[in-house]
Amino acid sequence: MTQASQIQTSQTDVLIVGAGPAGLMLANWLSRCGVKTRIVDKRGTKIFNGQADGLQCRTLEIFDSFDFAHRAWRESNHMLEICFWNPDESGTIRRSGRIPDTIPGISRFQQVVLHQGRIERFFLDSIKEHSDITVERGVLPTSFDFDVSKAGDFDDYPITVTLQALSEKEATPQQRNQHQKSADGEQTTVSDGLFRSNLAPDDTDDLINAAKSNNGDGHHIETVKAKFMVGCDGAHSWVRRQLGFSLQGDSTDYVWGVLDIIPITDFPDIRQRCAIHSSSSGSVMIIPRENKLVRLYIQLQATEYMQSKGKVDRSWITPDIILQSAQKIMHPYKLDYSYCDWWTAYQIGQRVGDNFSLNERVFLAGDAVHTHSPKAGQGMNVSMQDTYNLGWKLAHVVKGYSDASILKTYQSERRRIAQDLIEFDHRFSRLFSGRPAKDVMDEEGVSMEEFKSAFEKGNEFASGIAVNYGASVIVAKDGDALEQGDGTDVIGNHLLRSASKPQLAKGIDIGKRMPSFKVLNQSDARPWHLQELLKSNGRWRLIVFPGNLTLPENMQRMQKLGDKLGASDSFLRSYTPSSQPIDSVIEVLTVHAGPRTSLELLDLPEAFHPYDSKEGWDYWKVFVDDQSYHEGHGRAYVNYGIDPSCGASVIIRPDQYVSWVGDMDDYDEMAKFFSGFMKIQVPGAA
Amino acid sequence: MTQASQIQTSQTDVLIVGAGPAGLMLANWLSRCGVKTRIVDKRGTKIFNGQADGLQCRTLEIFDSFDFAHRAWRESNHMLEICFWNPDESGTIRRSGRIPDTIPGISRFQQVVLHQGRIERFFLDSIKEHSDITVERGVLPTSFDFDVSKAGDFDDYPITVTLQALSEKEATPQQRNQHQKSADGEQTTVSDGLFRSNLAPDDTDDLINAAKSNNGDGHHIETVKAKFMVGCDGAHSWVRRQLGFSLQGDSTDYVWGVLDIIPITDFPDIRQRCAIHSSSSGSVMIIPRENKLVRLYIQLQATEYMQSKGKVDRSWITPDIILQSAQKIMHPYKLDYSYCDWWTAYQIGQRVGDNFSLNERVFLAGDAVHTHSPKAGQGMNVSMQDTYNLGWKLAHVVKGYSDASILKTYQSERRRIAQDLIEFDHRFSRLFSGRPAKDVMDEEGVSMEEFKSAFEKGNEFASGIAVNYGASVIVAKDGDALEQGDGTDVIGNHLLRSASKPQLAKGIDIGKRMPSFKVLNQSDARPWHLQELLKSNGRWRLIVFPGNLTLPENMQRMQKLGDKLGASDSFLRSYTPSSQPIDSVIEVLTVHAGPRTSLELLDLPEAFHPYDSKEGWDYWKVFVDDQSYHEGHGRAYVNYGIDPSCGASVIIRPDQYVSWVGDMDDYDEMAKFFSGFMKIQVPGAA
Repeated sequence: MTQASQIQTSQTDVLIVGAGPAGLMLANWLSRCGVKTRIVDKRGTKIFNGQADGLQCRTLEIFDSFDFAHRAWRESNHMLEICFWNPDESGTIRRSGRIPDTIPGISRFQQVVLHQGRIERFFLDSIKEHSDITVERGVLPTSFDFDVSKAGDFDDYPITVTLQALSEKEATPQQRNQHQKSADGEQTTVSDGLFRSNLAPDDTDDLINAAKSNNGDGHHIETVKAKFMVGCDGAHSWVRRQLGFSLQGDSTDYVWGVLDIIPITDFPDIRQRCAIHSSSSGSVMIIPRENKLVRLYIQLQATEYMQSKGKVDRSWITPDIILQSAQKIMHPYKLDYSYCDWWTAYQIGQRVGDNFSLNERVFLAGDAVHTHSPKAGQGMNVSMQDTYNLGWKLAHVVKGYSDASILKTYQSERRRIAQDLIEFDHRFSRLFSGRPAKDVMDEEGVSMEEFKSAFEKGNEFASGIAVNYGASVIVAKDGDALEQGDGTDVIGNHLLRSASKPQLAKGIDIGKRMPSFKVLNQSDARPWHLQELLKSNGRWRLIVFPGNLTLPENMQRMQKLGDKLGASDSFLRSYTPSSQPIDSVIEVLTVHAGPRTSLELLDLPEAFHPYDSKEGWDYWKVFVDDQSYHEGHGRAYVNYGIDPSCGASVIIRPDQYVSWVGDMDDYDEMAKFFSGFMKIQVPGAA
Repeated sequence: MTQASQIQTSQTDVLIVGAGPAGLMLANWLSRCGVKTRIVDKRGTKIFNGQADGLQCRTLEIFDSFDFAHRAWRESNHMLEICFWNPDESGTIRRSGRIPDTIPGISRFQQVVLHQGRIERFFLDSIKEHSDITVERGVLPTSFDFDVSKAGDFDDYPITVTLQALSEKEATPQQRNQHQKSADGEQTTVSDGLFRSNLAPDDTDDLINAAKSNNGDGHHIETVKAKFMVGCDGAHSWVRRQLGFSLQGDSTDYVWGVLDIIPITDFPDIRQRCAIHSSSSGSVMIIPRENKLVRLYIQLQATEYMQSKGKVDRSWITPDIILQSAQKIMHPYKLDYSYCDWWTAYQIGQRVGDNFSLNERVFLAGDAVHTHSPKAGQGMNVSMQDTYNLGWKLAHVVKGYSDASILKTYQSERRRIAQDLIEFDHRFSRLFSGRPAKDVMDEEGVSMEEFKSAFEKGNEFASGIAVNYGASVIVAKDGDALEQGDGTDVIGNHLLRSASKPQLAKGIDIGKRMPSFKVLNQSDARPWHLQELLKSNGRWRLIVFPGNLTLPENMQRMQKLGDKLGASDSFLRSYTPSSQPIDSVIEVLTVHAGPRTSLELLDLPEAFHPYDSKEGWDYWKVFVDDQSYHEGHGRAYVNYGIDPSCGASVIIRPDQYVSWVGDMDDYDEMAKFFSGFMKIQVPGAA
């Protein structure tokens, strides 16, 4: 046999490179949608300490749509308040203000902190529960080929990648394991995150060389043909390099140290998120964590260690150096520790990828296309949300539900977010790293009023709730799609562009995630947050808000809509494979305006509560905006801005973002919206 | 070797016979307290279908104290509403009323339904996480000996039991597995619960004979010496028989069938809990369950099958017979099914044990001491609460924290509850099984108004929240302890009887479980339900409500109390083994009246936030009654009826029941309370 014939060849729909949060989110999505997926990571183990750890409200909402937010919510530390500490006239730091960490009312979750290892665990458990996908660790791609002639045929496999396995030693990164100071003289070791810091050189090429030199040693080599590939492989992304794409932006001169410790201190706000500006020793940010830990981000006076090209020499950085900096900044309060869980240091760089995809067949996500300061707690969140945006789109194209036009919206939507993020981070970092102004005449200094105000405004951005996707084939809103996104053309056939009537639901922003209020199940009076009904299982939703059904006119409109939706030639039928339940591609939910006791479920047409010959009626599709026995009144109609006398309908994407708002019974416009990108499964309609 | 010497002998602190919910609750408690425990069950497997499944609010509170209520809450079906259906003037059933299933405000949980197999799974996972205790299945006790001369020495092992292992076949009960009707003609089998019904004979003796005949076959035999034994072995309790104790009470003539099905029906309230009385065909109770299942309790017209001694011949009972009865009762609505998960039938018997313990060394719990109708959803709850009451008491005696006097309160408290339960069940069953009155002159019939009213009143009892333990060494309240309990003397030395001042906290009932309202952590502003701070880890709690600490007088009282509690001769120190943290036997928590921002944690004496040389200050002991950012205001002082100008202190048992209420700083009375039963670990004080 020749060597070539020894290499195993296989096919997959999606190949994911990198099993950090972005890669795992994608694998998790694809596991729920039943898409054939491979996911590889060059590292031999998942991580156990440190790393990014803030979870935005929006990320928790997404976790909840996958049924594991409660695990994060229970294990994490909840951050409720931000305290600002600034020098007083004598230069001594004082608490100068408090604001809520999460803007009240913005979400049913609040920002929490939990280390990345646990979050990866939730994903791994979820993937295992829903699929046979396993993370292949210590495996890295060593060659890439893309057959452009096949790029337009979405049943074909234009991507060819060689995968090679590393030995366990190669796949395990070297950490500086350092003796730890200890009050009682015990010697212990502490994890050092510098090897993953941007102060450390990339080791990908070394690993590839190591893998290649393993050839013939019995190490596994495989050729994988893929329909799609997604690079979730970090700031030094190998996938990005294959595509010839680059990150654009700059490094700053700011160097920060990070300590995860159990603090011994008399500082009063050590369990609050704090922004501390000293008069001349720099800044500290405090992030209280789970298990009594506190994370300190500490500004280091690194000017003297700056090398050519603006890179900092990392050899001088130790936990003691970082602690001493913190002690200076937090003086006159004492700070010490007996236990340090992890530490690292980094230099802030702010960059965005020039392209997020090659022909909508190879995509980049996460740190591979944006890098920035970790202190705003954005990195992991935005990275996971990249692939949360991409996952269902890939699944719908792979399964033939949608044409490929929806894939262009990934770059349009997520590159724009990355640009906004870098702009936010730029402003935030400057304010945080700058010296406080001594007085109003001190123009070089940072005004503490400006800082607090920026923090408050930044909080909405930082929650992830403010994300507002621009007009496209899957977001039917007015305005210039190019301006609203990153400049990619995502409108498709203008003749098919569907029109929304946003005035029918003034509390719902088209392009933003569907807000959530409590509604009651019509059949058993149980309260649910509306978002709990929007599980991430790949389904589009049509939510009908028929208003007050005791008004005969509303009931008649509901009957007519039910007849059209239930007809054998309706768009529901034509977009749903005949072998699947009628709610498996587009699910119809109803929220009427109540009262609950004015309606029986079976008063409504079958389209709103489908019948199954083995299981009877579906009791989990019709809800009501009414008073609950134990959890108050959600006031959904008031909060959504829908008039109960006429109602409205809302189309929601599989990722909970709002696509379309229109008249309650505007069947034709709904059909038009879906016809812009959906593929007919059962000919004869739509 | 002689045969005797081949038998292995071992010692354990507690031997539990029976691994149903009562036995598992006890093993779980003991696992949290680090008590050496064995638990055996004659059955070879845990159960997977059917069985008891209602969970009271109080049971969920207890599960939460063990950190697994969220699992039950997520997986269960929540019951929100009870609908009453009665014959109208023409004899056709109509919905005649609705009430909330759980009284609003009574608990932060509401009643839910989940089958017993899942609940046992939560216990097993919890036990595994906290100990090395494993359930030994297919193992049963075959002989029992009690050495009365050792009964008074709680370091000795007066109990000797022989344990024998069954073969797998013997340990697996035979079920009638019956072909199931199926809409599409498929043949499937369905689990039949009759073998465990009270219509089936007891098989314990057969199992013992089988086990004995295994001798010499290599089957395991072991002699276990135990300090305590607890019989959680069901209505036919082998342990009860060894003690010569009996159940007192009667069987009724009522026979009920039970079907767990996915219903195909046009009955409008099939997803609500319903009580349906037909005019002359009997009654149905509907209990909607998880996984689309519905449980139907269906009254069977069994008079013609009644045998001598009031026992019913069970051979005529089949799922079809039960379904047909339901169809008659629910006419004109249609009811059918394609899938049946489980079915059984039972005859209501109402009995209470004459004794719950032998010398406070052998105890009985659960069905071994009370049997009644399952329809009120009480059985499993009361059984688990029996051993929840007992567990910490056994642990404290085994660990030497308490003298044995507290063990007498088990019978006093729980036998009284069993008596109340039977009385409740008697009334409830009669109302439910009776024929509806035709009109006010129909004295034999049951008035539907009386039925609804009884249901409403019964709801508080059925929630488990109404439990109110009588005066004893561990409940410092006024009144006749004999009358408040079952007649057991549980007061001990009257000179040491501590006095409460219930008027200082009018919203807290001494003897009932501590009500729960939201308070904020002083250090990080996070809201917690007060009950979440009362985890079941074996600790007593002293909760100090110092009132408004901006009042200098309150702050001074707090300082003085802190000094006394922190002194080297305080009762905290003297009851805590010197090797253990100061909060490990009695934990001091503080809830001040706010505002939060008026106080810094370190303003309070160390006793309220203990210092650890490795971990610094304890930030999880001081709370405040104040507005939260996202979850409203708990109004704890208002709800507890405590005046913020003078405060109060509350002592709470390890099982969350209130022992004592007094002046905020009444150190002497607190010390007196504990001196009634606690054992000094560090001489020199109290």
